Amino acid sequence: MLIVQKFGGSSVANAERVLNVAKRIAKTYHQGNQVVVVLSAQGDTTDDLIAKAKEISKNPSKREMDMLLTTGEQQSVSLMAMALLEMGLPAISLNASQVKMHTTSDYSTARIKRIDSKRMKRELDRKNIVIVTGFQGINRYDDVTTLGRGGSDTTAVAIAAALNADKCEIYTDVEGVYTADPRIVPNARKMDEITYSEMLELASLGAKVLHNRSVELASKYNVELVVRSSLTEAEGTVVKEVIKMEEMLVSGVAGDDNVARVSLLGVPDKPGKAFDIFKTFGKKNINIDIIIQSVATDGKRNISFSIDKDSLNDVKEIVDQNIAKWGATGVEYDENLAKVSVVGAGMVSNAGVASKVFEAMYDANININIISTSEIKISILIEKEDMRKAMRKIHDKFDLGA
Amino acid sequence: MLIVQKFGGSSVANAERVLNVAKRIAKTYHQGNQVVVVLSAQGDTTDDLIAKAKEISKNPSKREMDMLLTTGEQQSVSLMAMALLEMGLPAISLNASQVKMHTTSDYSTARIKRIDSKRMKRELDRKNIVIVTGFQGINRYDDVTTLGRGGSDTTAVAIAAALNADKCEIYTDVEGVYTADPRIVPNARKMDEITYSEMLELASLGAKVLHNRSVELASKYNVELVVRSSLTEAEGTVVKEVIKMEEMLVSGVAGDDNVARVSLLGVPDKPGKAFDIFKTFGKKNINIDIIIQSVATDGKRNISFSIDKDSLNDVKEIVDQNIAKWGATGVEYDENLAKVSVVGAGMVSNAGVASKVFEAMYDANININIISTSEIKISILIEKEDMRKAMRKIHDKFDLGA
Repeated sequence: MLIVQKFGGSSVANAERVLNVAKRIAKTYHQGNQVVVVLSAQGDTTDDLIAKAKEISKNPSKREMDMLLTTGEQQSVSLMAMALLEMGLPAISLNASQVKMHTTSDYSTARIKRIDSKRMKRELDRKNIVIVTGFQGINRYDDVTTLGRGGSDTTAVAIAAALNADKCEIYTDVEGVYTADPRIVPNARKMDEITYSEMLELASLGAKVLHNRSVELASKYNVELVVRSSLTEAEGTVVKEVIKMEEMLVSGVAGDDNVARVSLLGVPDKPGKAFDIFKTFGKKNINIDIIIQSVATDGKRNISFSIDKDSLNDVKEIVDQNIAKWGATGVEYDENLAKVSVVGAGMVSNAGVASKVFEAMYDANININIISTSEIKISILIEKEDMRKAMRKIHDKFDLGA
Repeated sequence: MLIVQKFGGSSVANAERVLNVAKRIAKTYHQGNQVVVVLSAQGDTTDDLIAKAKEISKNPSKREMDMLLTTGEQQSVSLMAMALLEMGLPAISLNASQVKMHTTSDYSTARIKRIDSKRMKRELDRKNIVIVTGFQGINRYDDVTTLGRGGSDTTAVAIAAALNADKCEIYTDVEGVYTADPRIVPNARKMDEITYSEMLELASLGAKVLHNRSVELASKYNVELVVRSSLTEAEGTVVKEVIKMEEMLVSGVAGDDNVARVSLLGVPDKPGKAFDIFKTFGKKNINIDIIIQSVATDGKRNISFSIDKDSLNDVKEIVDQNIAKWGATGVEYDENLAKVSVVGAGMVSNAGVASKVFEAMYDANININIISTSEIKISILIEKEDMRKAMRKIHDKFDLGA
C-alpha cells in the first residue's frame, strides 16, 4: 500500500518525539508499504518565529512572513529524515519547492492548485521514505506561500490525492473521532467510521480533530482518511464516502461555547435587505453562522445571527457604522451562548431526530434560543452554562455511549 | 552604482542589530544605489541547529544537514526584508532556490557553478533592495546545498560577479585589513588598499577577515572587494587587482600559533617517495602546509612538514599505520610552533626582504625552525612563545606602523 502519514507539531516537538515518530514510520515501512510523511513545524517554532517578526515589524509583510515561517517545517523534515537514516532506513526530505507544491499567490492563505508528483514518485521508486513539509507551497513566481490554518492536514490529503494513495493517516493526540468530546461526555465512544459530510459538520463544530479544508479535499478526491493517535496503537476512525455498516441515525454531538448572538431589531422588510446586511459583514471577513429572520410585522423584521465570539468587537463596530443605513431600530447582543449540534448522515430520512433533540432539552429544562437544521445536522443555540448538560442529555437520548 | 553588501551572523544576531543593519542598507539605497544584500544565519542559529541534529543522529546525513542549516539564512533574509519594508523601503528576500544559485552536488562543501541573475535583475529593476541568503545553493537535483566555510563571503562575491556589480562590501567587526593583528602589534595600521594576491596570502595565514575562496573568486572575476566595519563609518580596505599607490615592499605580517611540525626521519631517497607519503595524507584530507626535505645522505632523507595542530592526532595515526611501508626509520613531532609570515606584492623583485626578516629574528634572538618562501610571502616556523615578539619585530623592521 501507499500510505501518507501526517504528524503535527507536538508529535515532533523534540528529539525524543522525533525518534518515536520515526519508529512508527519505520514500522509502516517494514510492513512493506510505501510511505510519504507530512510534518508540521516542531512544537512552538511557528509561534517563536512570529514573535521574532513582531519584534521587527508591527505588521510584517505576508510574503516575508511566509518566507520566515516555512523554515519551521523544513527543519522538521530534515530532522525526521536524519532520524530514519540513523535507523538504517532510506529517507529523504523535500520542501514545497522540491516537491513542487503549486499554490495560489495568496501569502498566508494560499490554496493548493496542483502537485507535481514526479519527484515524490521517483523517490518512492527508489524505496525512499519521503518526508514532505506540510503547510507550505510555491506560487507562480517561485515564491514561498503558506496554506493558513489546518495547512498540514490539507497538504497530506492533497499529496494522497496526487499520488492516488491507499490512505491518508492523520496522527493527533486523541484516538480518533468521538461521538462527543470525552472531557464533557464521559461515556463518549470512539467511532470506527464516519462519512466525509458528517466529519465536515463535526469539524466545523469544534470537534477540532481535522480541519474542514482537508476533509473537503478528501471528499472531493475520495481519499480515505484515518484519524488516529500518535501515542497509542489504537485503530482510529476511518473517514470515507460510504461507510460499511448501516449508517447511524446520529453519529455525534459537538459543542462550541464561544458563540455570540446579534439581533438587529425592526429591519425594514424590503427585498435585498438581508443581502445588503450580510454583504457588509462578508466584506470585513466576518463569518456568520446561523441566521434567523422573524416573520415580518408592520413591514419590519428582526434578523438574528450567531458569530464566533472572537469577532464580536468587529461586528459591533460594523453595526455602529451601518445601522442607520440598514434602517434597523435597535440591536441586541448576547455573549453567553453555546452551540450544540447533532450530526448524522442517517438523519436525512428521519424526521424524528429534531423532536428527540427538543425532547432532551425539555427533559433537562434547557431553553433553546435559536434552532437551525440542515440535511445532516441540527444545531441549537442555548445558554453557555447549559452546554455540557445538553451534550450529555442528547448523547444519552440517542444512545451513543460506549 | 550597483553594490553588493554582505553582513555576517553577528551583525544580524537579534532584532536590534537587524534594524541597525537595515539603516545602513537604507543609507546606501537612498544615495541612489542599487543594493543586493547577502546575509548569514543569525548569531548562534547554525550552531543551535547542528546541536539539534546531533541529538538525533551522531553522524547526520550531509544532504539533510544542508536542508536543516539553510533555514538559518532564510530566517535572516526574511527578517531583514521585513525591517526594510517597515522603514518604508521596497525590499524582497530570495533564497538560493529563488535566485537560482546553482552549485555542485557536494553537500556541505558545494562550489558555485553559475548564478541565474534574471530574478535578481528583475527585482532590482523594480527598485527593490534584494536580500539573498548566503552560504547556500541548489544542485542539479533541486536539492539544497551549503558552501562550507566562508560560504556567505563567497556568495556575495559570486553575486557581485554575476551582476557585474561596482563593488562588493564585506562587513565585519574590524575596520579593514591591518598590517598585523592589532591585538598583537599595537601600532598596526589599517591598509587602504591591498592586492588580491596579498589578501589571499594573508587570509590563509590567520588574518581571518576574508575567506580564501571569496578572494580567489573576486580575483578571477575582478570584483572590487571592500572590507569594512558594520559598527563604524570608517572607509575600510579595498581589495583589487592593481592598487593605485606604489606597491608596498611588504604589506602585512600575519601569525598563526596553532601549528605543529612532523619530521619523518631516514626516508629512503627514491623517486616518488614524497608523492607516496603526501598522497596518503591527501586522501585523509590532511592539509599539509610547508614541506622541507633535507639533502640526501647515504640514500636517506629527513622529510619535515607543518600542519594545523588540530589535525595532529589524525596525522599520528596515519604515520603509525604507514611508517613501515614508507621505510622511514623514525618520526619526530613538535607541537609548540607558530608560523609568522610576511606578505607583500613588492617582494617579488626585491631579494632583500628575506634577509631583513632573518635580521629581525637575529636581533630578537629568535631561532628559525623552518623557512618557506614564495613570490610574495616569506614564512618562518618558530617557537610558539616567540610569535608575538617576532611579529612586532618584523612589523617595526619594515616600518609598517601607523
